[in-house]
Amino acid sequence: MSGVVNFSAGPAMLPPAVLAQVQAELLDWRGTGMSVMEMSHRDRAFMSIAQDCEQRIREVLSVPPGYLVLFMQGGASAQFGVVPQNLLGDRRSADFVVTGAWGSKAAAEFSYFGQAHVAASGAAGHYTSIPDRADWDLRADAAYVHITTNETVHGVQFQTLPDVGEVPLVADMSSDIASYPLDVSRFGLIYAGAQKNIGPAGLTLVIVREDLIRPVLPGTLTVNRYATVAANDSMLNTPPCFAWYVCGLVFRWLQETGGLAARAQINRRKAALLYDYLDAQDFYQNPVVQSCRSLMNVPFTLARPELDQAFLDGAATAGLVGLKGHRLVGGMRASLYNAMPESGVRALLDYMKEFARSRA
Amino acid sequence: MSGVVNFSAGPAMLPPAVLAQVQAELLDWRGTGMSVMEMSHRDRAFMSIAQDCEQRIREVLSVPPGYLVLFMQGGASAQFGVVPQNLLGDRRSADFVVTGAWGSKAAAEFSYFGQAHVAASGAAGHYTSIPDRADWDLRADAAYVHITTNETVHGVQFQTLPDVGEVPLVADMSSDIASYPLDVSRFGLIYAGAQKNIGPAGLTLVIVREDLIRPVLPGTLTVNRYATVAANDSMLNTPPCFAWYVCGLVFRWLQETGGLAARAQINRRKAALLYDYLDAQDFYQNPVVQSCRSLMNVPFTLARPELDQAFLDGAATAGLVGLKGHRLVGGMRASLYNAMPESGVRALLDYMKEFARSRA
Repeated sequence: MSGVVNFSAGPAMLPPAVLAQVQAELLDWRGTGMSVMEMSHRDRAFMSIAQDCEQRIREVLSVPPGYLVLFMQGGASAQFGVVPQNLLGDRRSADFVVTGAWGSKAAAEFSYFGQAHVAASGAAGHYTSIPDRADWDLRADAAYVHITTNETVHGVQFQTLPDVGEVPLVADMSSDIASYPLDVSRFGLIYAGAQKNIGPAGLTLVIVREDLIRPVLPGTLTVNRYATVAANDSMLNTPPCFAWYVCGLVFRWLQETGGLAARAQINRRKAALLYDYLDAQDFYQNPVVQSCRSLMNVPFTLARPELDQAFLDGAATAGLVGLKGHRLVGGMRASLYNAMPESGVRALLDYMKEFARSRA
Repeated sequence: MSGVVNFSAGPAMLPPAVLAQVQAELLDWRGTGMSVMEMSHRDRAFMSIAQDCEQRIREVLSVPPGYLVLFMQGGASAQFGVVPQNLLGDRRSADFVVTGAWGSKAAAEFSYFGQAHVAASGAAGHYTSIPDRADWDLRADAAYVHITTNETVHGVQFQTLPDVGEVPLVADMSSDIASYPLDVSRFGLIYAGAQKNIGPAGLTLVIVREDLIRPVLPGTLTVNRYATVAANDSMLNTPPCFAWYVCGLVFRWLQETGGLAARAQINRRKAALLYDYLDAQDFYQNPVVQSCRSLMNVPFTLARPELDQAFLDGAATAGLVGLKGHRLVGGMRASLYNAMPESGVRALLDYMKEFARSRA
């Protein structure tokens, strides 16, 4: 089926230009006679792919000196534990600002390694807003403050970065990394599963201020020791080579299409199309407070939940897929990552309007 | 460059039929309008891919009831620690039979979690033979006995499975899984990084007898808990979907080309071509005792090490790549995994003979 628009929350759409290139060079990467999948990670060809990817990431995200860029495995869910294993040292606690399902999971996993102090939580309001910064119970002796910059399930995103003083800020940016310009120097550590904005599943990006790395906690796997991974250029053992390669192509695409400033503009425009419509009618509802609505994931409910299946069926017929909301919140969710074209959002809007008209 | 033969030790050659199919359906998997890389792992399409892969693995490897098949991340190097985290329970020790570099690493990582007892080691003989079973110092109270069925660096392989009595046998089969018929019921646990015989890097296969799983050691990441991974059908968090998909295609290729019995015959024939030549002349040398020579990785040295670079350069010109030996042993290494055609071995032999003639 051609013309499908994929609103999946992740794995998610990749830029068509990237996929076309992957397909074109799948059997023979630049005259090597090998697929990237077949290359030894020690081969000069793959080393150049790997280094090129890191260089592009450093350029696109403006990663300052003193920060390591690591390519790991296990997803953000692994990092929920790997971060404290590497950053906690002899501290016992970190602060968590929980603004959705993923932040909650991060705090839970942390509890295997130390005391997770929930400094603020949107749970009481069903994660429809971010607690006021003034009300955060931050502690000066916390090893770090953890936030989830964008919550895919609840559609909640930090529009501006909070000031947390001298305590390092650690952020799970799995679902909005590389979707807007970022001041990396304000973070102690950023981690992200690749499968939303920057590549296929199976690759995890970690950007960490080198001086924050502490001796690891007992029981930390060697493959998860940041210092060791860094000392081996993320090739301590065989990395997820193919995902790394595709990630490099995605960052090149970002560079060639105007970088993060241009991307942020497009992303704001795409999300505004949908939110403006949601706010202008009564058939669909988005429960999130305006100031923290996600530009990446737009959850919405229908006037009557019994219409959900008909909505999804009609959407599928119209080539609009991946719209089913997360089971925690129900309803629908449209994910509008970098690779989602504005035309996709317009197609969704046309369908939503037509569906509302027919069922109102 | 077409006609390249890739002798890399891993990531390594994939069957051309598999790569051709990956390429053909890269932009649109079976009319879904999506690349497999773009599919949500919760999507029906990817679920069918995942289940089909597991089913084929169970068929091809004849996995008996009572064994879980898990799809994980981190490679065999992660499993070096994850296995004790899941199997050690209140035991403190396991036995290691070390027949090369990888078994040695497995024992070293185990030491973070318990006492690694080296029951036998080929180190004194520079890993050119497997110690006699009669000389293994196995202990009845070991949590398990660990072996590496094939050592890629030293080219040492178990030709027959050792009898270790009642203690569960745990095997790193990263480099020879699915290369010959296997009695899985003789193992407590098998683990394998995918990137040699069964797919691209980034996927780790674990086959474990369910009743051996113990409460995990403190500090074990949730993503590495076998029981939790199993309860979530290996989709506790986003799995390495694309590698999982390619792995399924590789197992289908194995089925369509006669299964493991046919594969073993071909692999024996390929390796015999090379070993027979090595034994029939004096210019090249393989140091490994015949009874434990690897069918997968054939290391060899040249009469004079100063010829190594000329050998590699000439090989590259002839389209024979990935032949440089591991730095630990030097010389050359030809890896002959499942996807290596007999014609590739013959091309190598022709080149070796010609090179020897010209430099003898």
